[in-house]
Amino acid sequence: MNKKWFYPLLIISTLLSAFSHFFTHNQPLQFGTACLSLLFWAALLGKATESVAHYSGERLGGLLNATFGNAAELIIAIFLVKEGLFDMVKASITGSVIGNLLLVLGLSVFFGGLKFKIQSFNSMLAGHNASLMMLSVIALFVPAVFMGGLAPADVNTVSLIIAGVLIIGYFLWLYFSLVTHREELGEAIDGLPDEEPGHEESPEWSKRISLLMLFVSTAFVALQSEWLVHSVEAVAHALGWSELFVGAFLIAIIGNAAEHSAAIFLAMKNRIGAAVEIAIGSSLQIALFVAPMLVFISFLFGNPMNIIFSNYEIAAIAVSAFIATSISRDGSTNWYEGVLLLIVYLILGTVFFVV
Amino acid sequence: MNKKWFYPLLIISTLLSAFSHFFTHNQPLQFGTACLSLLFWAALLGKATESVAHYSGERLGGLLNATFGNAAELIIAIFLVKEGLFDMVKASITGSVIGNLLLVLGLSVFFGGLKFKIQSFNSMLAGHNASLMMLSVIALFVPAVFMGGLAPADVNTVSLIIAGVLIIGYFLWLYFSLVTHREELGEAIDGLPDEEPGHEESPEWSKRISLLMLFVSTAFVALQSEWLVHSVEAVAHALGWSELFVGAFLIAIIGNAAEHSAAIFLAMKNRIGAAVEIAIGSSLQIALFVAPMLVFISFLFGNPMNIIFSNYEIAAIAVSAFIATSISRDGSTNWYEGVLLLIVYLILGTVFFVV
Amino acid sequence: MNKKWFYPLLIISTLLSAFSHFFTHNQPLQFGTACLSLLFWAALLGKATESVAHYSGERLGGLLNATFGNAAELIIAIFLVKEGLFDMVKASITGSVIGNLLLVLGLSVFFGGLKFKIQSFNSMLAGHNASLMMLSVIALFVPAVFMGGLAPADVNTVSLIIAGVLIIGYFLWLYFSLVTHREELGEAIDGLPDEEPGHEESPEWSKRISLLMLFVSTAFVALQSEWLVHSVEAVAHALGWSELFVGAFLIAIIGNAAEHSAAIFLAMKNRIGAAVEIAIGSSLQIALFVAPMLVFISFLFGNPMNIIFSNYEIAAIAVSAFIATSISRDGSTNWYEGVLLLIVYLILGTVFFVV
Repeated sequence: MNKKWFYPLLIISTLLSAFSHFFTHNQPLQFGTACLSLLFWAALLGKATESVAHYSGERLGGLLNATFGNAAELIIAIFLVKEGLFDMVKASITGSVIGNLLLVLGLSVFFGGLKFKIQSFNSMLAGHNASLMMLSVIALFVPAVFMGGLAPADVNTVSLIIAGVLIIGYFLWLYFSLVTHREELGEAIDGLPDEEPGHEESPEWSKRISLLMLFVSTAFVALQSEWLVHSVEAVAHALGWSELFVGAFLIAIIGNAAEHSAAIFLAMKNRIGAAVEIAIGSSLQIALFVAPMLVFISFLFGNPMNIIFSNYEIAAIAVSAFIATSISRDGSTNWYEGVLLLIVYLILGTVFFVV
Repeated sequence: MNKKWFYPLLIISTLLSAFSHFFTHNQPLQFGTACLSLLFWAALLGKATESVAHYSGERLGGLLNATFGNAAELIIAIFLVKEGLFDMVKASITGSVIGNLLLVLGLSVFFGGLKFKIQSFNSMLAGHNASLMMLSVIALFVPAVFMGGLAPADVNTVSLIIAGVLIIGYFLWLYFSLVTHREELGEAIDGLPDEEPGHEESPEWSKRISLLMLFVSTAFVALQSEWLVHSVEAVAHALGWSELFVGAFLIAIIGNAAEHSAAIFLAMKNRIGAAVEIAIGSSLQIALFVAPMLVFISFLFGNPMNIIFSNYEIAAIAVSAFIATSISRDGSTNWYEGVLLLIVYLILGTVFFVV
Repeated sequence: MNKKWFYPLLIISTLLSAFSHFFTHNQPLQFGTACLSLLFWAALLGKATESVAHYSGERLGGLLNATFGNAAELIIAIFLVKEGLFDMVKASITGSVIGNLLLVLGLSVFFGGLKFKIQSFNSMLAGHNASLMMLSVIALFVPAVFMGGLAPADVNTVSLIIAGVLIIGYFLWLYFSLVTHREELGEAIDGLPDEEPGHEESPEWSKRISLLMLFVSTAFVALQSEWLVHSVEAVAHALGWSELFVGAFLIAIIGNAAEHSAAIFLAMKNRIGAAVEIAIGSSLQIALFVAPMLVFISFLFGNPMNIIFSNYEIAAIAVSAFIATSISRDGSTNWYEGVLLLIVYLILGTVFFVV
């Protein structure tokens, strides 16, 4: 797109979306304008992530992107927890995890693979991501298997302990990956920016502007996502789609627009390491930090949510983690591995739709 | 064996088998002559596969072998589907997958490993095979978990969608592995023919004759297998063995005689890459192409077969895929890894026998 | 500790423990003195293992350590089998496997990783360990899935067959790893002793003395462990802890003191290969040799124990095997991978405590 027209169109589409959201009840109009605006903000977010990654390294950039992307989801989930809508919270956590592991990662790997024959990233990071995904599945599987027949008080205590352990594990992971073993997990393979600064196009924005743009564009992507979610729910219910499908697929797809756009954008620039960091890193953050935090927050509200997910949800997350681990473990990807992820997403989407 | 006597014995044993099949009712005689004839045809098939592999590369040769081997099974299964014998179809699909992953691969790896300390093959191929096996397990596991309580009409629709997605996935895999990433998955490690043509014994047959021999010998192996199956069923029932065991083990062992003989033959010539391609490639073809095709064909017959396998069958296939993945993932094999596969086959055979 | 005081303190603490065991009924005193004595014997055992490993290589040293460590457990289990306490036997087998895979391996990897950034060991060995763990899980999972509704006589027959197959598999593994592929699985990476004998501190003991010390110290560790177990059971029951938790966690932790101390000791000397051999090797020995032997022995006693474990036990062992495989498969470890193992141990311990 011509650069000249980008910012004017961004602003106009955002104003149109805001107008239709606040002053009309026309849901298809709300949906259309929010989509259009989202498109522009997501593009800006991708650019901001890339610019930040230029200064901070791909992994920190990816982590920032994932964190900003999940912040919106956390806020929405807190409101749902407060109202006791635990099933919807768990469905949206499930949807987020499988959406990131299958759809975001699948599209990134596929489109990246169409442009580059084989894309590589740090294989030690790939191995650790796999182990952390395994931990996420274990942390969902074990309570569901063992606590079927327990008293609610015991279930709640165990939920709190497991949630606490997972949060500690997640912070130790950040400490490990960003402090003690930063270099080993780092940019060795993809780290063109540091080693060949001349080879890279020099970034348009300064470090401070990049961070600001990352923050602002993430905020607007979150805002537009939420508006979109509101209108899409009404549309979906009019079409007779199930709550589970809407929660775990439709809302998750739109709610993860930030991760989607940035990850695919980066993969197509051969920065598959950053794309993987966004997609898998975002799932891990949801499973090991966001979900446990919600358990704790629910206790503060005096209405405890346990950590027991339904069999459907555990099966979907386990299946996603296994296939994502299988394709990413060797630290290299190609278009067909993207196809595999998308096939599993399609299969899960189909069964969730009819269940 | 003296080469002079090979073709006369081949012809005589085939005539004997045909005579006893058409003109006698003596089932032990039918069984014995079919076995003898099968032995000769399987040897010829192994030679033809090796000769084709010489011209086409090991992977295409392996694929051709697997395809010809499965063609017979597909034809038999279509007749069973037409008559609505869905349980027997699913048992034989299960038996074929675990027979290839455990028995064919196990014997190849074991006997190859007795002659060569460590045998290596393309590790990128190994990784992709593992991911495809994971997809096969997921495609069986997800419907069984999610569709227990659904209306038959929904189950059938979902079965068709999943079958369609798997067939598309399988053809994209062929396109990926034989066209876009042929070299990466290819003969790099085992590719002696291309690099050192002098080192290789030059093949006896021309390219055209090799293909013809592959076709003819596969056809006769299939024919003899079917005759064997007929007589073996009667023998088995006389001995009081269960349908499930006969379907999933006895028939599968004999029905896969083509893969067995060729794979072991190639492994003992240190062409473990081709042997793996036959064994794992054949399982994948059954899980991702043959089984979905049968779902479609059943709809054409107006008597829809769904894609929901029994828990026993899914457990057996999952267990086989996990252990086969575990030993093959690193792209190298040794005799003990063959032992591991055979142990799991023995365990599954034992429980299937008593269930 | 000053070397001068080591042996006197060892002897005094052992005498104190023996006195309180035989002549008092004061269980806290028995517990305290046994703990103290165990500490000294475990230190001596670690030193003996290291000395033996110096002469025999790390893998054989690790195997000896694991075998001596499990001998005590086997003896205790035989008495339990004789009295028909099958549930307690299975709980202690489960506890031993997960204790070794998660706690012993986790602590070794964690403390080794605090001193050394990345520790490496033979990756072919890591792959085979992973496949053998998979076999252990399969051998527990398959009977439980398939034999739910069978007649006890059939269950017993199948249990005997599976037990026999596993024992054969275990001995073939020893033959493979110690004879035919000893070098490939061997000391290539960690093998400092053989290659740079000068670099290593020369061992204090001769080969014969080392073996004797290994034997004697293992015997005393086993003895003290058993005394500790007796007193700890009474203490635990006074506190109202469940049998399952005491059997699978408390007793397993204390009963594996030999493996614990030696493995952590070796890991902190950067001999992670020997530590892994002890931790994973010990689990494999229990799953593939000790447990099947107990099935056979139960038949000799005329009171057959089958090989069907409870769902809880299978889930716990499967989860442990998966995470241990995931972190060890690449043949290198770091402190965070130890944290992951310990987190899973904590989660399992929590749910076992409340179940």
